[in-house]
Amino acid sequence: MTIASHPPRRTKRLQEASLMEGPALLMSRIRGLSSQRGLIWFACIPLALFGLGVFNLSAHAAELPELTAAFLANNLFIFICAVLVIFMNAGFAMVESGMCRQKNAVNILLKNLIVFALAATAYWFIGYSVMYGDSVLGGWLFFKGLFFDPTVTPEMVSEGSLVPTVDFFFQVAFAATAATIVSGLVAERIKFGEFVVFSLVLVGILYPISGSWQWNGGWLSELGFIDFAGSSIVHSFGAWAGLIGAILLGPRIGKFAEGRPQALPGHNMAIATLGCLILWIGWYGFNPGSVLAMDQTVPYVAVTTTLGAAGGGIAGTLVSQIRGGKPDLTMTINGILAGLVAVTAGCDGFSMAGAWVVGFIGGALVVFSVSFIDGLKIDDPVGAFSVHGTCGIWGTLAVGLFNMDKGLFTGHGASQLGFQIVGVLAYGIFAIVASLITWSIIGAIFGGIRVSEKEEIEGLDISEHGMESYPDFAASAK
Amino acid sequence: MTIASHPPRRTKRLQEASLMEGPALLMSRIRGLSSQRGLIWFACIPLALFGLGVFNLSAHAAELPELTAAFLANNLFIFICAVLVIFMNAGFAMVESGMCRQKNAVNILLKNLIVFALAATAYWFIGYSVMYGDSVLGGWLFFKGLFFDPTVTPEMVSEGSLVPTVDFFFQVAFAATAATIVSGLVAERIKFGEFVVFSLVLVGILYPISGSWQWNGGWLSELGFIDFAGSSIVHSFGAWAGLIGAILLGPRIGKFAEGRPQALPGHNMAIATLGCLILWIGWYGFNPGSVLAMDQTVPYVAVTTTLGAAGGGIAGTLVSQIRGGKPDLTMTINGILAGLVAVTAGCDGFSMAGAWVVGFIGGALVVFSVSFIDGLKIDDPVGAFSVHGTCGIWGTLAVGLFNMDKGLFTGHGASQLGFQIVGVLAYGIFAIVASLITWSIIGAIFGGIRVSEKEEIEGLDISEHGMESYPDFAASAK
Amino acid sequence: MTIASHPPRRTKRLQEASLMEGPALLMSRIRGLSSQRGLIWFACIPLALFGLGVFNLSAHAAELPELTAAFLANNLFIFICAVLVIFMNAGFAMVESGMCRQKNAVNILLKNLIVFALAATAYWFIGYSVMYGDSVLGGWLFFKGLFFDPTVTPEMVSEGSLVPTVDFFFQVAFAATAATIVSGLVAERIKFGEFVVFSLVLVGILYPISGSWQWNGGWLSELGFIDFAGSSIVHSFGAWAGLIGAILLGPRIGKFAEGRPQALPGHNMAIATLGCLILWIGWYGFNPGSVLAMDQTVPYVAVTTTLGAAGGGIAGTLVSQIRGGKPDLTMTINGILAGLVAVTAGCDGFSMAGAWVVGFIGGALVVFSVSFIDGLKIDDPVGAFSVHGTCGIWGTLAVGLFNMDKGLFTGHGASQLGFQIVGVLAYGIFAIVASLITWSIIGAIFGGIRVSEKEEIEGLDISEHGMESYPDFAASAK
Repeated sequence: MTIASHPPRRTKRLQEASLMEGPALLMSRIRGLSSQRGLIWFACIPLALFGLGVFNLSAHAAELPELTAAFLANNLFIFICAVLVIFMNAGFAMVESGMCRQKNAVNILLKNLIVFALAATAYWFIGYSVMYGDSVLGGWLFFKGLFFDPTVTPEMVSEGSLVPTVDFFFQVAFAATAATIVSGLVAERIKFGEFVVFSLVLVGILYPISGSWQWNGGWLSELGFIDFAGSSIVHSFGAWAGLIGAILLGPRIGKFAEGRPQALPGHNMAIATLGCLILWIGWYGFNPGSVLAMDQTVPYVAVTTTLGAAGGGIAGTLVSQIRGGKPDLTMTINGILAGLVAVTAGCDGFSMAGAWVVGFIGGALVVFSVSFIDGLKIDDPVGAFSVHGTCGIWGTLAVGLFNMDKGLFTGHGASQLGFQIVGVLAYGIFAIVASLITWSIIGAIFGGIRVSEKEEIEGLDISEHGMESYPDFAASAK
Repeated sequence: MTIASHPPRRTKRLQEASLMEGPALLMSRIRGLSSQRGLIWFACIPLALFGLGVFNLSAHAAELPELTAAFLANNLFIFICAVLVIFMNAGFAMVESGMCRQKNAVNILLKNLIVFALAATAYWFIGYSVMYGDSVLGGWLFFKGLFFDPTVTPEMVSEGSLVPTVDFFFQVAFAATAATIVSGLVAERIKFGEFVVFSLVLVGILYPISGSWQWNGGWLSELGFIDFAGSSIVHSFGAWAGLIGAILLGPRIGKFAEGRPQALPGHNMAIATLGCLILWIGWYGFNPGSVLAMDQTVPYVAVTTTLGAAGGGIAGTLVSQIRGGKPDLTMTINGILAGLVAVTAGCDGFSMAGAWVVGFIGGALVVFSVSFIDGLKIDDPVGAFSVHGTCGIWGTLAVGLFNMDKGLFTGHGASQLGFQIVGVLAYGIFAIVASLITWSIIGAIFGGIRVSEKEEIEGLDISEHGMESYPDFAASAK
Repeated sequence: MTIASHPPRRTKRLQEASLMEGPALLMSRIRGLSSQRGLIWFACIPLALFGLGVFNLSAHAAELPELTAAFLANNLFIFICAVLVIFMNAGFAMVESGMCRQKNAVNILLKNLIVFALAATAYWFIGYSVMYGDSVLGGWLFFKGLFFDPTVTPEMVSEGSLVPTVDFFFQVAFAATAATIVSGLVAERIKFGEFVVFSLVLVGILYPISGSWQWNGGWLSELGFIDFAGSSIVHSFGAWAGLIGAILLGPRIGKFAEGRPQALPGHNMAIATLGCLILWIGWYGFNPGSVLAMDQTVPYVAVTTTLGAAGGGIAGTLVSQIRGGKPDLTMTINGILAGLVAVTAGCDGFSMAGAWVVGFIGGALVVFSVSFIDGLKIDDPVGAFSVHGTCGIWGTLAVGLFNMDKGLFTGHGASQLGFQIVGVLAYGIFAIVASLITWSIIGAIFGGIRVSEKEEIEGLDISEHGMESYPDFAASAK
């Protein structure tokens, strides 16, 4: 069977066909967007904003004093870090699509591309306010209106603070990361629209709620939990949310044959490798940027991040060689990412050797975790839970073991390890419960979240998007 | 038909064959470069430069005072922004080649690669001086000798100014962008050498002339026109120049069959998506860098840029779904780029909501614009005019509508909108006339700008370059 | 023959098969890593580090004074430059894999990916100390213990110095570059494990020894040799080391048929072009970052780097057109890289015109060098020696010709040219001898460094890694 047997349907798209099937009323209301009438709805968005006067919301600063060296350096630094973290979207897009099959590549690319657009919108509209707003429910819930006030005050300049816009710019990139992790776990079988809705809820509500517990001085922060750049807050949170999706979806057709997991190899190792290297340099925004100021700890964090990635990559390669007889590129990629995720929670407080070891253990763990998840008959196409979930948890716990000032292995007892366990459980439980509810509601409204068997076999590119990723090339005979 | 039926001809290149056809004398003089004698000509370039003493032109600064915080931050910031904008070359190369057919991929990649080399040379040799030189013809023409003086003065340090080299470094990246936009519009049918000559003229002369009208304090700037980072000056200018080329070239064979536009799908959606994400982060150099200093407005511009892209991506996806029944990845890509182009002119003066709406409208416009251009029987292979032209114009006009201090929708009357219309017309008319003349002269000298029908059907990779982009893969049976 | 005739073997990997062949004892000891017992060995690494107390090595600074503008700018600048240089790993991975055949793509991607992980580990463990340690043997050898001390002192702040971590972060990226160049020269026929061992020795010992001669104030620096950012120290050093490997390996099967070199075209020009553009922007960390501080010379170096690349790209394109009748994309890519390598040694001291000319000559040289290397019956699959070796040497010599204060062509006599010749010879001789010894020892221990004929024909992806890079696509019929 060649690709060519599925002619591209761009010129004769089935108007509404795939969208208008399913339980009628509520769905059709929400999906009204996809009718011609929907255009009018959308036109209402700008008009409503106009009515709210939002086009006049000024960002003009009061008269500011001369900009100080610290103010300049801090804001410039976080601006750069935000750009690096946003670049991670390209990394995720390449890793995930490269590790999936060609017939679903357009779908995964589109999901990764639109996720950042959706995340930016939802996090600006409400998420940032939920995550960094004022306390509403003693350390558990926060809020501060829609949008946010970008005004720069003279105090910010004199104190060298981050201005609100640069803080938002950096934080929105993190929010998008959490949503992107989900897309890997549910790849190759989820409906496009349903994924979009889940992402909006995740970025606008769920991630901000639990994120505020630690990064807005909420109850976990009060407790003494440490998660410097988000091994749990971002990575394992996204991984849990995606895992629930993967369980609800069930495995892809052909993944488990005769009770054993089958390899469904990724279609493009070149872009998967590129994606890994893009993520690696994106992490230099993610971790050092989490210092939230330019100072002498920034390059220290860059070094521990590098060593964590190095340890992870070496371990992933070695362990895959030992177990399978040959070094496996996908395990080098996942090992590097595992090392990066693992070192994220404690990159400011590990010694350099500690960072390398935490990364190394992460890179080894990811290989076993992939087999373990397979053994549970859960289908995680790109190993996203093993990378972001397993190693996110490991990295969070590792703070309790290797932190130079508070770790068990550095002679400071087990109390910090206890706090870390609480944090791991808190993020795990909240993510599981909240995403279970969200996926279920979405499934109920839209009549399921999985594409039909026929569509899945045909590939999501044709069935969901009516196009192919590489139409000029013949498919292999397999 | 498989790719393999066109064996690569690297080992037996046809010496001069394709180059020596055509009207004889003038062409052969200019094309003398392509004879063995040409090597001697080229050797003369360094010798001539030597004779001019240019190897001694010193960049050594006078004794400088201690570098101030503002001087350090401003120059570092623009250095970084220039690198980001230069990275956009990779984005354009991936978007354009990914959206074209496999048989022309080498050609498009090579054009995008060499364009920056040519642009850097031409803009350094003369373009920068035309764009930012001294007034020659009252606000309409500027010049200040060849090359430029890189000397750093003590005043630059004390005032925190940009040094000449960093300003050139940033501006040359913009000039290359204008040239790169052209390559998308003329893709898959233009001769390589003729494109090269046009690019040199565009970057060295045309773009600098009209750019100076606004960015060097020329007549449009005096008038009150606003184009913060170049929706018109860079994007619509390049788009108009390319559109004239596309019209003169005529459509690709097979684009309009039986009077209706046919889909000629791009060959590699993975790299097209990657290119879009690279352009997105490159825009964080393009727009925030246009502040031309590190201050509190930089991250504000980064946020409005993000929201414009987000709005555009969402609109492109939604509108393509509404019109075609399925979300179309190419329209998500073009929607994001459209949002970015649209927000570019006013990213410093829109409210955040205004930026999102301007981007959203841009993302919707691009879908309709693609159909409209198709309807005119003009063949724009990658939708470059719809993205850079239509949305460049829209973004420029949007300043007159949504600018917080001067817009119609923010209660400041229509006078700014009038200035914006003048600017849009000025850039459109100049680009159309100047590029029509340039393309015509090039066509007259070289005997046409379009490859032969045989070469086009065979593909430009074989006919113009004697190589294939993916020789190890079989072509689809189509 | 389609790819599909080699079914992926992931699910039935041959346990240890390919690894346990060969001379028994010593090899099996070293390769014990690849037995199950090896897992225990690895577990010992962290335990040994624990025993050494390395998890407690503190990075905490003494009480620091207020951070000065220079301290902030310098450390932020080098942090950013290091990230850019690290991004070059992605560039090398894409250029090298794109220019090789599809059947070896996984192998090359994996080598490029793991090289940075190995380099970071080896350079942190010992290499940085050998390169920037205290003098052990009067200007010829340096050392300062394992790891390095990341402590920040108040003096560093007041003097605006780079902190140790940011210096390491920048230098490790350079070390990885040297190792990566090797991978291009030995591509498509070297055993994976043997390459890994060579890389560790190169980054941990060889490159640091000769690097210290110049960059740690060793004997070449005392002599008056100039190599600003490493045309010889990094690029030609890596190229010589790889060339010896290429000679020892012998050419790929089919490279020289009937006594004449055959074209074995690269499989993916899109990623090769992307890689070139990534390397281009990575060079903005490589060269400007070598100023090692943020000052007014940084953008000057960025401009000379740009002009060198531009000259090189134009020359590579033109010369390939003149010689072959058509512009060759691979020669544009190699021309740009050649220009960048050539301008690296003197980018701070060339005039802008000088930089363009040095790059232009480099871009022309690379085309002739590729033919020359072919004529020697040495197989350099991606032209890495021509780019990094030939042009590294040219760039180093060019300092003696074009340096504004010391060059022959700028009226300052030939003495600097003499120093440059000494430097070129020193790096060439040391690299040849040291890598000849290293390759030989590795070959002796592991029973050769080349894969079997059967494995090479089958492709390294299947034989060394049991996987394919693009399993969903059919191979061309050739």
